[in-house]
Amino acid sequence: MTADPVPNASTRVRRFPTLGPELFDALREDRPRRIALQVPAGLVRNATDLAERIREETGIPVVLAGRACFGACDVPSRDEVPNADVSVVLGHAPIPNVTLPMPTYFVEMRVPAEDPERLVRTLEAAGIPRRLGIVASVQHLGLVDPLSEALTARGYVVRVGQGDRRLAYAAQALGCNYTGAEAIAGEVDAFLFLGTGRFHPIGLAFAVDRPVWSLDPLQNTIESPIDRPALVRRRQLLVASVRNVERWGILVSTFAGQNRTATALALQERARSRGRQAEILSFARIDPRDLEGRNVEAYVNTACPRIALDDSALYPKPLLTPPEFLMAIGELPLDPYRFDTYH
Amino acid sequence: MTADPVPNASTRVRRFPTLGPELFDALREDRPRRIALQVPAGLVRNATDLAERIREETGIPVVLAGRACFGACDVPSRDEVPNADVSVVLGHAPIPNVTLPMPTYFVEMRVPAEDPERLVRTLEAAGIPRRLGIVASVQHLGLVDPLSEALTARGYVVRVGQGDRRLAYAAQALGCNYTGAEAIAGEVDAFLFLGTGRFHPIGLAFAVDRPVWSLDPLQNTIESPIDRPALVRRRQLLVASVRNVERWGILVSTFAGQNRTATALALQERARSRGRQAEILSFARIDPRDLEGRNVEAYVNTACPRIALDDSALYPKPLLTPPEFLMAIGELPLDPYRFDTYH
Repeated sequence: MTADPVPNASTRVRRFPTLGPELFDALREDRPRRIALQVPAGLVRNATDLAERIREETGIPVVLAGRACFGACDVPSRDEVPNADVSVVLGHAPIPNVTLPMPTYFVEMRVPAEDPERLVRTLEAAGIPRRLGIVASVQHLGLVDPLSEALTARGYVVRVGQGDRRLAYAAQALGCNYTGAEAIAGEVDAFLFLGTGRFHPIGLAFAVDRPVWSLDPLQNTIESPIDRPALVRRRQLLVASVRNVERWGILVSTFAGQNRTATALALQERARSRGRQAEILSFARIDPRDLEGRNVEAYVNTACPRIALDDSALYPKPLLTPPEFLMAIGELPLDPYRFDTYH
Repeated sequence: MTADPVPNASTRVRRFPTLGPELFDALREDRPRRIALQVPAGLVRNATDLAERIREETGIPVVLAGRACFGACDVPSRDEVPNADVSVVLGHAPIPNVTLPMPTYFVEMRVPAEDPERLVRTLEAAGIPRRLGIVASVQHLGLVDPLSEALTARGYVVRVGQGDRRLAYAAQALGCNYTGAEAIAGEVDAFLFLGTGRFHPIGLAFAVDRPVWSLDPLQNTIESPIDRPALVRRRQLLVASVRNVERWGILVSTFAGQNRTATALALQERARSRGRQAEILSFARIDPRDLEGRNVEAYVNTACPRIALDDSALYPKPLLTPPEFLMAIGELPLDPYRFDTYH
């Protein structure tokens, strides 16, 4: 599925490695009247202190965006913080092909690169394959080069892919887009993800038919691959179970980087041509309660693909990605399974 | 607390008693390119059928607003349905002093007036006081005049108040504003609410120190008054419990009719002058999860007053209304309790 065409991203996007003097200098120079500060869920505990720090360093009023961000796709809209004229977004890199609602300072929260030799010993001990593609969360991108060099010195073959216009950096992982990994999948026996948590390894496992190992660079711990066939089989069974559904809801989010209205309209057209009912539901952030009690049998979600894949237990009805929906109404085969890569 | 000053409401607001030919004619005449349909929680089950009916009657594409509405204050923003150029909002009357984001058709879902004689017999049997103020939900406003006449014929003294600029009709109840009732509280011994549910009776009991009886006109059943002192005492105890809180969050919603940014800034100023920390959090619809894990001890909510009063059990921290916050920091006495009437 392709995102709706957007003009090139605003030029008023700036990137900073950490929340430090470079950011404060830039804010003091640009002199916004009010700053919207948005933090990822993991930093919510520190949000008020971070807001106070920015205010003290710059002398500019700060408003906290009430909801945490999950990606550079759901930055604050003008509607959510109408009195702010710039956003400071922590923990994410800009998505190059997304047009932002206001000037935005992305603070990528990079962590210093850890000792690659120590990490290589862990990888060797785990018996990781020798032809490797590397993917990393933004925080750990600084480790990609030193670790690749250390691995190559030990005889590993390391590949790093450059993704499409949705990815700012080579090797970068985005929950909805692993096109960098897809580009080199044919050259490697496995992928190595650098970062924490299972969110990116699961996405990567959906996107590429290769084992995905995860290395937490801070803990120096490695996790062996998740069971891709089980993930895919569960989705194929879900798709098969809704093949006869007559009443569909098509979900559209209006977040800057998640709005696929054109895709939704195209899916509605396909559904109708196959004799199904399909209503479009529009929202900013979706809440499972919004789908309760509706006279609809199943949904296709054109917003973040990970909502359908990861959060389905929270929803009262089956929730499919766009390619899964096309499988359900008979426009695509069930196999091979297609990840909803968001371009 | 006063709402932020707003210009007079858009002139492109239209009112319709029901979802019928008048509405369809108006839509066909005005020829919007796309309609956003928003329904209250009680009509969510019918939303897709209603959307289809409007589309069939008018030939105009319809998008459903993903979230249900709780009042004419939280109509769809342009941000939530960017492709729609008019909204059809069911179940509410316009709030005259709210500027709307787009042309809006309010369909008030009026119900035909029931037999007043039958209802009067129920009221008499329940022993309701003889000097009565009448308040009604929008659906039942058509019953106010015939019922008042029938009651007057039996020797009752009936009063109906005209509220402030937030109320479109005399006798109208709004969850955040009972100024019509407040205006006549001195002339009556009790209030009679015409409608269903406990939402309005509870709000009315917070706003006026008079017993509030509820008559469900469809079921012809009457509920005796709720215990106002218990409601108020619970809030006063909550306020007393947060008197020493140092770290406050001030919540601001950006919904068209709930945005009290100026109030929030004034409260922040008061908090700081009393030596408290107070950060402003901005959001469209608040979700209790947004307040989890924050390094804040208590909140004051400048959005819908009923969130603090009715939904507090859903929130992880104490949630106060603006007057309650002023009580907590010592700027207002605990007694008499002040309802957060939203003007």
